[in-house]
Amino acid sequence: MNDKIITLDHGSGGKISNQLINSIFLKYFGNPILNQLHDGAILPPVNKKMAMSTDSYTVSPLFFKGGNIGNLAVHGTVNDIAMCGAVPRYLSVSFIIEEGITLEVLEVVVSSMALAMQESGVEIVTGDTKVVNKGDVDGIFINTTGVGYIDNDININSQQAQIGDTIIVNGPIGNHGISILASRANLQLEQVITSDTAPLSDLVQKMLSVTKNIHVLRDPTRGGLATSLNEIAQSSNVEIEIEEEKIPVEEKVKAACEILGYDPLYLANEGKLVVFVPEKYAKKLLKEMKSSKYGEQSEIIGKVVSKDRNLVYLMTDIGGKRVIGMLSGEQLPRIC
Amino acid sequence: MNDKIITLDHGSGGKISNQLINSIFLKYFGNPILNQLHDGAILPPVNKKMAMSTDSYTVSPLFFKGGNIGNLAVHGTVNDIAMCGAVPRYLSVSFIIEEGITLEVLEVVVSSMALAMQESGVEIVTGDTKVVNKGDVDGIFINTTGVGYIDNDININSQQAQIGDTIIVNGPIGNHGISILASRANLQLEQVITSDTAPLSDLVQKMLSVTKNIHVLRDPTRGGLATSLNEIAQSSNVEIEIEEEKIPVEEKVKAACEILGYDPLYLANEGKLVVFVPEKYAKKLLKEMKSSKYGEQSEIIGKVVSKDRNLVYLMTDIGGKRVIGMLSGEQLPRIC
Repeated sequence: MNDKIITLDHGSGGKISNQLINSIFLKYFGNPILNQLHDGAILPPVNKKMAMSTDSYTVSPLFFKGGNIGNLAVHGTVNDIAMCGAVPRYLSVSFIIEEGITLEVLEVVVSSMALAMQESGVEIVTGDTKVVNKGDVDGIFINTTGVGYIDNDININSQQAQIGDTIIVNGPIGNHGISILASRANLQLEQVITSDTAPLSDLVQKMLSVTKNIHVLRDPTRGGLATSLNEIAQSSNVEIEIEEEKIPVEEKVKAACEILGYDPLYLANEGKLVVFVPEKYAKKLLKEMKSSKYGEQSEIIGKVVSKDRNLVYLMTDIGGKRVIGMLSGEQLPRIC
Repeated sequence: MNDKIITLDHGSGGKISNQLINSIFLKYFGNPILNQLHDGAILPPVNKKMAMSTDSYTVSPLFFKGGNIGNLAVHGTVNDIAMCGAVPRYLSVSFIIEEGITLEVLEVVVSSMALAMQESGVEIVTGDTKVVNKGDVDGIFINTTGVGYIDNDININSQQAQIGDTIIVNGPIGNHGISILASRANLQLEQVITSDTAPLSDLVQKMLSVTKNIHVLRDPTRGGLATSLNEIAQSSNVEIEIEEEKIPVEEKVKAACEILGYDPLYLANEGKLVVFVPEKYAKKLLKEMKSSKYGEQSEIIGKVVSKDRNLVYLMTDIGGKRVIGMLSGEQLPRIC
């Protein structure tokens, strides 16, 4: 056996699994709870509402400009928890690994996860590793499930959008989607486009320090900003107007979209959020967001204009107005 | 598009994903929390210690005698939570599906999960679905992550085994392993061997009603009873003796093991537990276990005999005594 390659034995639950756990997982993820290596982690009581979210990450390729499947798997779940207004606290992680992957690749992924966890303020408290035969899975898939705690006076969800709400996005959209596409196709774009993958937990806590009266938070991942806004319009039964010229998109992303035939409104993001907040808080919130690491390029992009018709309108640069629908089919598989 | 087949569009996060969520997932899993379809579930405060556990299920084949990947994915995680002495409460579920799987197969799996959840007293509160290209994954993989709550006076973990503890198993071992093996190889065994997959949450609560002074609970899944006992011996730094003639194994499992060259001590179980309890509670506990649906064939199989040497001895039928080690490599991949 070449000990630098993952084999089926590493997923057996026996001695060789234990070696993998000690040499890689505990090295990077170790903490007093995880180190007990019980099948279930035991966590202290917290008398608050709890947010729970899960995602399996199947991104292809495993490595792309700006990140890899490891930090993506931390950011994605941390962000889903943060979008509930919660402070993310604990993660579980489950690896499904194809035999033949090198330990070196696994270690790069795991060390990226550790860095992302540190920045996000979360710990991995329990885990699982399965190794499957070559060909039964493509590379590495990672599931992370997270929990976090919510102050009792916070009530953020996609049913809360109200007439007059201002809509803010925390920066330019579409980078993750184009970055993956470029890595996958080995495209030589004129300029390098970097994924925006990032943890938004700190940003959300700063936003909540301005007002707890935030109505909706959403991270526009699969399906992009257009799909997220449609989901919110449906859940809250409201009509939304956004202004094309206000939506931040990097010039190089625009250029790549034109060449490749994509619309940035439908491209996945991994470090973006949209927030719906009463207009009276909008300016102060925008200022706070702009002072935060992952919000420097925040912009007000639109508002909720009426009730009882769940539609999203785009006010175009040239003065037109058109409905933008939900993503219908799959624009780009294995984006996250 | 053939609408009876899972396609990449079903994992897009757009309209067709929504149709799948409504027509299958909400139909079987629906509850007030899940129905909100927020990326994160919001759960009420519970001021107790919490257990959290995760597992990805990659069992092959998807269907086997006695169960399928769906109820296995519920039982496995429910049992890991129960082994902390917790009452399992909420699950997340994440599907990774190979395009081309029929909706019918998915629906059978999902409906089995729903039945298993009902019996286990848990609800699915949040989920995720990824569809990957044909060949990128073999069939369906399911991750479930669970949380449950623990009474503050319960302190069960694998470091608690003490000299004099009696060791009890809740029934015959090895059935799951042989069942999978038989299904996979399409073996025509003389008698059908059924997986023992089952939820152990009720059994554990009944056991705790006898005494909260249970030291260790463990479900011997991958690696079997021998590996679990070795892990406990190491964690608690104790020496364990078990008696071969006391360990329940169905005759047909014994026969299959002889033909196929497996040792039941190392075969996976999915509805079994071992418990370490002070001797003074052992008889009462055994009686309670035998009165429970998944404990009728419970037996006392051994005891903790000394400290400071972490070894597991098997006292054989013919009067011998030998050390049984941990499973070293992989006995049978994709068993769960």
